[in-house]
Amino acid sequence: MENSGFCNDNYTSETSDDDLVDLTGATCDFPEDVPYLDGDDSAGRSKGGQAQNGSVDVLDLLQGWGSGVGTYDDFNTIDWVREKSKDRDRHREISRKRRQSITALLLSVSDAFSGWLLMLLIGLMSGALAGGIDIAAHWLTDLKEGVCLNGFWFNHEHCCWNSKETTFQERHRCPQWKSWAELTVGVTEGASAYVVNYLMYVIWALLFSFLAVFLVRAFAPYACGSGIPEIKTILSGFIIRGYLGKWTLVIKTITLVLAVASGLSLGKEGPLVHVACCCGNIFCHLFTKYRKNEAKRREVLSAASAVGVSVAFGAPIGGVLFSLEEVSYYFPLKTLWRSFFAALVAAFTLRSINPFGNSRLVLFYVEFHTPWRKATRLGRYPVLEVAVVSLATAVLAFPNDYTRMSGSELISELFNDCSLLDSSKLCDYGPLAKGGEPAGNLSEGTVGQAERPAGPGVYTAVWQLAMALLFKMAITVVTFGMKVPSGLFIPSMAVGAVAGRLLGIGMEQLAYYHHDWDMFHGWCSPGAHCITPGLYAMLGAAACLGGVTRMTVSLVVIMFELTGGLEYIVPLMAAVMTSKWVADALGREGIYEAHIRLNGYPFLEPKEEFVHKTLATDVMRPRRSDPPLSVVTQDGMTVEELEGLISDTSYSGFPVVVSPESHRLVGFVLRRDLVISIDNARRCQEGIVGVSRVIFTEHTPVEAQGAPPPLNLRAILDLSPLAITDHTPMEITVDIFRKLGLRQCLVTQNGRLLGIITKKDILKHMAQMANRDPDSILFN
Amino acid sequence: MENSGFCNDNYTSETSDDDLVDLTGATCDFPEDVPYLDGDDSAGRSKGGQAQNGSVDVLDLLQGWGSGVGTYDDFNTIDWVREKSKDRDRHREISRKRRQSITALLLSVSDAFSGWLLMLLIGLMSGALAGGIDIAAHWLTDLKEGVCLNGFWFNHEHCCWNSKETTFQERHRCPQWKSWAELTVGVTEGASAYVVNYLMYVIWALLFSFLAVFLVRAFAPYACGSGIPEIKTILSGFIIRGYLGKWTLVIKTITLVLAVASGLSLGKEGPLVHVACCCGNIFCHLFTKYRKNEAKRREVLSAASAVGVSVAFGAPIGGVLFSLEEVSYYFPLKTLWRSFFAALVAAFTLRSINPFGNSRLVLFYVEFHTPWRKATRLGRYPVLEVAVVSLATAVLAFPNDYTRMSGSELISELFNDCSLLDSSKLCDYGPLAKGGEPAGNLSEGTVGQAERPAGPGVYTAVWQLAMALLFKMAITVVTFGMKVPSGLFIPSMAVGAVAGRLLGIGMEQLAYYHHDWDMFHGWCSPGAHCITPGLYAMLGAAACLGGVTRMTVSLVVIMFELTGGLEYIVPLMAAVMTSKWVADALGREGIYEAHIRLNGYPFLEPKEEFVHKTLATDVMRPRRSDPPLSVVTQDGMTVEELEGLISDTSYSGFPVVVSPESHRLVGFVLRRDLVISIDNARRCQEGIVGVSRVIFTEHTPVEAQGAPPPLNLRAILDLSPLAITDHTPMEITVDIFRKLGLRQCLVTQNGRLLGIITKKDILKHMAQMANRDPDSILFN
Repeated sequence: MENSGFCNDNYTSETSDDDLVDLTGATCDFPEDVPYLDGDDSAGRSKGGQAQNGSVDVLDLLQGWGSGVGTYDDFNTIDWVREKSKDRDRHREISRKRRQSITALLLSVSDAFSGWLLMLLIGLMSGALAGGIDIAAHWLTDLKEGVCLNGFWFNHEHCCWNSKETTFQERHRCPQWKSWAELTVGVTEGASAYVVNYLMYVIWALLFSFLAVFLVRAFAPYACGSGIPEIKTILSGFIIRGYLGKWTLVIKTITLVLAVASGLSLGKEGPLVHVACCCGNIFCHLFTKYRKNEAKRREVLSAASAVGVSVAFGAPIGGVLFSLEEVSYYFPLKTLWRSFFAALVAAFTLRSINPFGNSRLVLFYVEFHTPWRKATRLGRYPVLEVAVVSLATAVLAFPNDYTRMSGSELISELFNDCSLLDSSKLCDYGPLAKGGEPAGNLSEGTVGQAERPAGPGVYTAVWQLAMALLFKMAITVVTFGMKVPSGLFIPSMAVGAVAGRLLGIGMEQLAYYHHDWDMFHGWCSPGAHCITPGLYAMLGAAACLGGVTRMTVSLVVIMFELTGGLEYIVPLMAAVMTSKWVADALGREGIYEAHIRLNGYPFLEPKEEFVHKTLATDVMRPRRSDPPLSVVTQDGMTVEELEGLISDTSYSGFPVVVSPESHRLVGFVLRRDLVISIDNARRCQEGIVGVSRVIFTEHTPVEAQGAPPPLNLRAILDLSPLAITDHTPMEITVDIFRKLGLRQCLVTQNGRLLGIITKKDILKHMAQMANRDPDSILFN
Repeated sequence: MENSGFCNDNYTSETSDDDLVDLTGATCDFPEDVPYLDGDDSAGRSKGGQAQNGSVDVLDLLQGWGSGVGTYDDFNTIDWVREKSKDRDRHREISRKRRQSITALLLSVSDAFSGWLLMLLIGLMSGALAGGIDIAAHWLTDLKEGVCLNGFWFNHEHCCWNSKETTFQERHRCPQWKSWAELTVGVTEGASAYVVNYLMYVIWALLFSFLAVFLVRAFAPYACGSGIPEIKTILSGFIIRGYLGKWTLVIKTITLVLAVASGLSLGKEGPLVHVACCCGNIFCHLFTKYRKNEAKRREVLSAASAVGVSVAFGAPIGGVLFSLEEVSYYFPLKTLWRSFFAALVAAFTLRSINPFGNSRLVLFYVEFHTPWRKATRLGRYPVLEVAVVSLATAVLAFPNDYTRMSGSELISELFNDCSLLDSSKLCDYGPLAKGGEPAGNLSEGTVGQAERPAGPGVYTAVWQLAMALLFKMAITVVTFGMKVPSGLFIPSMAVGAVAGRLLGIGMEQLAYYHHDWDMFHGWCSPGAHCITPGLYAMLGAAACLGGVTRMTVSLVVIMFELTGGLEYIVPLMAAVMTSKWVADALGREGIYEAHIRLNGYPFLEPKEEFVHKTLATDVMRPRRSDPPLSVVTQDGMTVEELEGLISDTSYSGFPVVVSPESHRLVGFVLRRDLVISIDNARRCQEGIVGVSRVIFTEHTPVEAQGAPPPLNLRAILDLSPLAITDHTPMEITVDIFRKLGLRQCLVTQNGRLLGIITKKDILKHMAQMANRDPDSILFN
């Protein structure tokens, strides 16, 4: 288990808030041996912070007793209701003070605008980072091929910019740029040059990928993968300390550049979402309002994920919709507006940094990680795994033009339509055979205006593309879950684009040679140009990505923002919809949901409806064979008895009842709060001993003469636990949990407390029901 | 009260499901004298339908006893939880049967795709209607000025299309088109022609507006106004029978054409949303799934409102965001995707119908209705009111070019930048004074390339625009609430565009004459073109509309889809954001919320946070001074006692408890279900008399010898009522009501039933708190 601390392995929280085993039954293998470089720090800070704020009531009553009441352990689920109440308390406090002094008024105004300032900062920072990553990745990618004599820090394009000796068509060939073969053996052509270049390409690729996996392994294990499944889980209310910390940010940014430059079949879009969320989380520490409240912070993170997609594709509206549709759990309208603002700021920051000026081109990349890799033995040796995959990728990718180029270059080449000046192999068409102009220079202006027979270049391209398709499909499946930052958007788009372009060329040639076929009749007259292979590539890319992620509206909007042009929106929609239907018929989960399920994160999918006819009584604990429910009585237990209950059980909270006989519900008390309060009382409050009575009532009763003073803990009692009846259908219960963001819910029968349902009980029940009746949710 | 049956008057439901007075204290004046032309029919149908479907359990147990269990009265709130459960029951039933036969399998597949088919139908129908409205309104508008000799059904543009005698600049003048003066007195110029044209313009305007108000008054009172506030209320779960019926659709479509053609200061965008929702509601009757379920039908209506905005502006993405941000209450992700599909279908249907080809131009219109009209005495005489306003509009609008043209023409003229061939007065600039080319023909190509002094045309235009601004502002305020279909988008955009253009021209001239001022320093060098008045107009329009409706993201996206060009998105955002902040500082409600509040609809605003520190116990009924809570015991009451309880109280439901002493909650029973069941039992079930016991337990106890058989009504008992504790903060309670769509919630204390909170209690409490502390929610 030496290397098990990485992000794609199964996880079970040992300190989880629930007493249940993990859904997938695997053991906990989050990295115990790797320090949470950022976690300790932020955990410590937020602990102190939250206790200061806490619930105002608790603070007043506990009067500075230590800290920790109202905070959460790592790998726990937050209580949305409590967090939102806390924020409203804080807000009410500020509003109340506002009328008292000008300082307080200014504070309240600055508090109101801090959200906007935060958005501005996230947008600027994320845009700048994305721009930096673009530039660095470009430079390192070119370094695999050669070096610039003017200065090694120039990339190929920059190096040749100032060269006046090149024509537009030969703009990438200039004397300042030397390939490795030229530098070492002094030849530019021939077998020896090819071998040297090949070798250098492989060496650099290996070096970059090794460096990437080493950095991730050594400094920030959370920096691997795309991060989107984890971010979805965090946004749903789970706590993973350090996942969005500053070390993760730094390492992810650096290793993302290396991973992209190494030429592995991965993209930078998903990781950019993670990077933006790290920025969001870090900037949250500047503002008390967001630092101290887990719910408010998640609003910011929702906006940050929109920023991530915005900088990944230059698509601010698509980013907001992606956050809404794919990532976010709690997305109030206020967040919609703020996300939009932040996404715009980020997109414009990126655009103003981007030194290439070719905004459409740069905005093209993707990510991949499918779950089957679990089975490989290599998974246990992440560094070796990366080295092997990287070697295979480099060796196999170099000989084929279409795999050697980066994913984004490939996609933009495939989307491209053949027009004037296009020297691509894909546009090497033969002369017009019938009814057209003569071939040659004169006809260049009409290239693409009419169907023409494919030339030898096109045939070569088709074979290379077919090989590239097979290679990309295979290598992407192997690459997806490696221990480096890796995204899935670009590889899946590239696969789809290659398939689409091949189909498009096929259709085009069919239309040329068989104009008279029924399928072309009426809309494709001879000599006209009716098939656009570039459009086929675009639709293929969208369909493939849609099938992998199950994105819908956001994907269409992203594609439309990428390509600019409302006219393609209808075919795009048709492609995305078809691919979603086909994919749903094969299995209902998108890649992120599958990832979440495989990792056993406690995530209550908001999209899927629960359709089974079970009742709350079937799910609640205790079951019939279990020992009775552990409850606390409101005035009948001593400190010792409570301590015994705490040590005997591992429940994260206990219902408080009037008496054990009546089982009439009074409230709910959290284990963590109880432990902290009793410890503090024993240390700081005079006269509290083991036999002191613990009281949860409003008025402390008078104790018999000689008895120790009672300990009143009403301050930590949650007086408004939600209760449902035992006959409540589970479909309604699931809805209540989802919409209110509950951690647990009490179950009553005819007014008596009967049991408790936790979020994990629900997840377990849903998994059971899905296994029993797998296709019941298909035609939903 | 003769004419009180119109939509902008206050309303209190007499048959409301709650026992409380209306929030605004006004009396009910929904039209009792006007038949619900569509209501009876649909109510009858859905009653029968829902009883057949109802809850499966109820059906089994009531064994075909009459109908009505599980339906709602007019002006009642639906129970979202129950409706969604019902749909899941239906779905489960279909899934179960699917494996039994091929017919059932096909039925289940057709059921799954019925939603998409419905969306397709709504898109096609709404697009077609919007296209028809466009064409008809265009024709009638031109009819005010003259008639086509080739055929009176041609509008001005169509009439001159085939004329070969006209140049491009004079394309609107052709011999076939005759103004009224030409036809009647035979002159085209001079005072007499002006007078005749003026007179005919006023007469036609009066005729159209009279016809519109007459049709609305006589056939479909619900067709007036924009309909958006009512649709928001309906989507939140309120029932207004006939509001989305076929008569409303027919009359609204016809009168919308008339109202727009009459030249009143109103737009067609809001009404188009109402028209689309009517289409959606009517098509819902084709599918059992949607006909019989109020929650499912509201999903369709959410999508239909997106369709409405899509056809109003040709902005499908903006439409979806408008529905999400502004109109919808319950918007699952499934609806997002379907709305998008329907909105696209509609936009393309409209575009393919549009005979003018100038898609951008046609897609420009708006709506208005502000609440202050309440105070006018004219409001009681709607026909007279319309006649007076229409006369005033026509008389005052004709002499000024900028008020005579329609709102959309005005806006597109103002957005326009001065370029080659532009013969508008707004582009009559003088020759370049310094550093430019010579004036005259040669400089035409550079018009708009450099700042130039305003010519006499611009000065005239500025004065006319200033007058138009004053006129538009005044007349729009008067027009907004009239008894004709009227929208607010276009008039408010027009006001904003005029103001923006004026500011833009001012800035431009300032920049020309005072290049050296600090504010121009550095970015506006002499001879350069730095100020674009058209952009100012666009920003003004967006800002004004944003201030009126408080739309944010959806407005920016709509403007960007209208004008096409991501580059203006940042200034647009800044304008919309500033106007929202300024407007929020003056009062937090948008026009639709204000309208809903003034009409006293039971609408729980999802955007506003409840910030007061009250508890459930402060809001629940009964209050301390009230008589005790009316409860039903589960086995202790006779039929007579229950009938007495029903006739003595007007509550819409009763909690069922174990015994009056323990007050332990068993369930909740609705008044309507109780009345229907007892009536049915008395009629159809043998032996049920006044002294028969009514039982709600699972097992019917054996009665004493000689006693009549008991009546078991467990089938109508809701076994899963939600209960909260008396200490639950109201902020959480409000959240629960909003998110779960509750009608009522029970309150317990230490496990005993204490009281009940209804949606109306909450609305009343929120209104009270807002009055007490009006600015507490300002800096939220």
